[in-house]
Amino acid sequence: MNKLSAKAKSLLFMLLFTALTVKAQHNDTLLIRQIFDSALVNGQSWPMLEQLCKKVGHRLSGSPQSLEAVRLTRNQLLRLGLDSVWLQEIKVPVWQRGAREQGWINVDKRKGDIQQQNRSDIRLLALGGSIATDPSGLEARVLEVKSVDDLKSRTREEVEGRIVFINQRMDARPVNTFESYIGCVGIRYSGVVEASKLGAAGLIIRSLTHIIDTFPHTGAMTYEGAPRQIPAAAISTYDAEFLSKQLRDQTNLTLFMKLNCRSLPDTVSYNVIGEIRGSEKPDEFLLVGGHLDSWDVGEGAHDDGVGVVQSIEVLRLFKALGIRPRHSLRVVLFMNEENGLRGGLAYADWARNNGIVHKAALESDRGGFAPREFHLETEPPVLEKLQAFVPLLEPYGLTAIRNGFGGVDIGPLRDGQILLLGYVPESQRYFDYHHAASDVLEEVNRRELELGAGVMTSLVYLLDRYTF
Amino acid sequence: MNKLSAKAKSLLFMLLFTALTVKAQHNDTLLIRQIFDSALVNGQSWPMLEQLCKKVGHRLSGSPQSLEAVRLTRNQLLRLGLDSVWLQEIKVPVWQRGAREQGWINVDKRKGDIQQQNRSDIRLLALGGSIATDPSGLEARVLEVKSVDDLKSRTREEVEGRIVFINQRMDARPVNTFESYIGCVGIRYSGVVEASKLGAAGLIIRSLTHIIDTFPHTGAMTYEGAPRQIPAAAISTYDAEFLSKQLRDQTNLTLFMKLNCRSLPDTVSYNVIGEIRGSEKPDEFLLVGGHLDSWDVGEGAHDDGVGVVQSIEVLRLFKALGIRPRHSLRVVLFMNEENGLRGGLAYADWARNNGIVHKAALESDRGGFAPREFHLETEPPVLEKLQAFVPLLEPYGLTAIRNGFGGVDIGPLRDGQILLLGYVPESQRYFDYHHAASDVLEEVNRRELELGAGVMTSLVYLLDRYTF
Repeated sequence: MNKLSAKAKSLLFMLLFTALTVKAQHNDTLLIRQIFDSALVNGQSWPMLEQLCKKVGHRLSGSPQSLEAVRLTRNQLLRLGLDSVWLQEIKVPVWQRGAREQGWINVDKRKGDIQQQNRSDIRLLALGGSIATDPSGLEARVLEVKSVDDLKSRTREEVEGRIVFINQRMDARPVNTFESYIGCVGIRYSGVVEASKLGAAGLIIRSLTHIIDTFPHTGAMTYEGAPRQIPAAAISTYDAEFLSKQLRDQTNLTLFMKLNCRSLPDTVSYNVIGEIRGSEKPDEFLLVGGHLDSWDVGEGAHDDGVGVVQSIEVLRLFKALGIRPRHSLRVVLFMNEENGLRGGLAYADWARNNGIVHKAALESDRGGFAPREFHLETEPPVLEKLQAFVPLLEPYGLTAIRNGFGGVDIGPLRDGQILLLGYVPESQRYFDYHHAASDVLEEVNRRELELGAGVMTSLVYLLDRYTF
Repeated sequence: MNKLSAKAKSLLFMLLFTALTVKAQHNDTLLIRQIFDSALVNGQSWPMLEQLCKKVGHRLSGSPQSLEAVRLTRNQLLRLGLDSVWLQEIKVPVWQRGAREQGWINVDKRKGDIQQQNRSDIRLLALGGSIATDPSGLEARVLEVKSVDDLKSRTREEVEGRIVFINQRMDARPVNTFESYIGCVGIRYSGVVEASKLGAAGLIIRSLTHIIDTFPHTGAMTYEGAPRQIPAAAISTYDAEFLSKQLRDQTNLTLFMKLNCRSLPDTVSYNVIGEIRGSEKPDEFLLVGGHLDSWDVGEGAHDDGVGVVQSIEVLRLFKALGIRPRHSLRVVLFMNEENGLRGGLAYADWARNNGIVHKAALESDRGGFAPREFHLETEPPVLEKLQAFVPLLEPYGLTAIRNGFGGVDIGPLRDGQILLLGYVPESQRYFDYHHAASDVLEEVNRRELELGAGVMTSLVYLLDRYTF
């Protein structure tokens, strides 16, 4: 076998696969129905998510809540009767928001002949990693720009000493909202660098969401390349519209902002890991996972409590239905996806150093919405093999398996061999809640969550049985 | 042409269609992209829905609000500059809920050696069409049954004088929630008839929704075949679980219910109609519609404010993009879908009596969720022709055009010729809000609504251009 060309191997695989599917399709159809019945009728993904959201809540890396989440999910895994459950110790960065931010603008109001100055509050949320303002706050005139490119085209005279306000709308046209997100996430991640280069005193950005509401959305940013660190925050889309309107009437208005955040030395945290040993190829692993940390507002329900509980549910369903996997199945709940990726990096390092063979890794980190697709980082022949699974999953809402991005946490495992897979549910509502106080359990629909767990479990079953 | 066999006609159609699609596909792709860009960037479906939900609110047939909804949507149509806008006068039944319902159970509680009776409120919502209780209310022992069949198997001795409580859970297993709904809607529609036959004093049903929450869900019921009219109400799923638990501990507990509803003589109302005259076949109509009335709680947002504004938006997009239809396009906002279907029946009667030729009718009445499918009531050859449109709509989330139910309001147009089409978005969340106070604008996602309007407009465009 070792001497066969890749093409011959692929052909052999296809023949074998075809024969298997003809024989096995009926059994697979029945088993997949059982998986969904169990996920929908006796599913544990919802009660597990309820515990994570309501008993722990948000859980930024290094926070006491993040360690509570480690304990909770470790216990959830222990109760499944897996072959092993353990913690991988890692170091994570620590960033703290501190006391609640304050922000306002001073607006001139005319009543008859009398001119008054009124203070209007602006809802601010520091970007993750930002420094604080001076304890007395920062007050400065505002320069509104439409994009990072627009900012770069400004002169130092225009920018210096100002608070730059990047008011870029997410593009409404792409049907997949992640496409719009990628198109404007630069304002959040590196807008502060460009503002600093031109001497700005601070940065505020319009939150990265389509809807107009009053929740500011935070997220990671970098100072890399910035000559000076300046404070940076997001404001809600509603406030961005309001501020922009006020600036049209009154170009010299001032904005006050006070951020109280700080960075502390790295601290100890953990990836949470559990596994079922494979019956035929115990040394080859199929990994399923999501990330355990979240931003420090809301409850991290869609991002990524959902991915955590769906991943645990995959292993629970294997156990509950008595499905013995051929390969070892491993669930990894990664710490620190949001502001450092230390969990994903440490896990991949450990796996490489110990010669652990991963055949595939599936990540759920795009919310708990109704199933649509799986995305796969691989060459066409492998993609086509996996697409043969689609008819088995169509009755449950899956419409396609396509080329695309797997996931952030599993990315460091990329080695040219492993199949990296991303679970891709309906995307319309994801950015309504992303990194905001509105990302709470109540915004997750139980059935949509459970269908996601079902479709992930079915895919892992089919991968285990037919792909390697 | 008239002498050609159906088969030859069909073949000719297919050849013509194939030739057209090859030539036109590129143009169609561009035009459909324009339709979605306009729906997503400058769409009016959301502001129109906001007005219907927040300025009018719920709008049961015969209520003052239902006439406000007629005025509002007529004005919305007038502003589009259509070729004509008019009202079709109809008669509708009038049922009024009256003062808010009251309900409680008397529960024994033991504190040490002392036994106390505590009153626990039960959230009741009269079923549409129910009679009132006596002004002093109805108090009786409760008989819990699991289904209508379970009820039918009981003896008169068991049922007589009791309040029957049908505690049937919606089946969680079907992926399409409408399948579960059809499987248990009988408890609401005709449960009261079976309870009356066995001498029950009243009926309460578990609300028809998957989620456990505190909103009771109303809906239509009938007394046809009942020897005596008895009062009937829905209770929330949370209260159904609570009541069932209490009944296990205390089989003789009594439930008090007070309903204040009444039926009044029929009154005048209207279907709201607007149209764009066709350039080639002005006497052949393509109809798009939803229903204007709603139940008298919440805001009738998903049911069926969404269908109303999406249908108006179809005609708006034709006008805004300068698409001149070959056939006449007509939007019909039907009155009285919920408790009489008088609008749908009157429209079909009028059309038949006046020899109006409808080639197709498309209804949106399954909520404002992300696009999935269209369902079509027709024979396979026509279905296959329409399935050729799917690749053009897949980039916008449409996954299939299948055989299935068109819609309640367009049903009376069924004549063996007309194509009846239903817009079928993702179904998981629909029954969370259906006929309950939770059916409000805030539970509609703007992008999901707009994508629905886009995919409906695109289908109407393709039908107009290629199908007849």
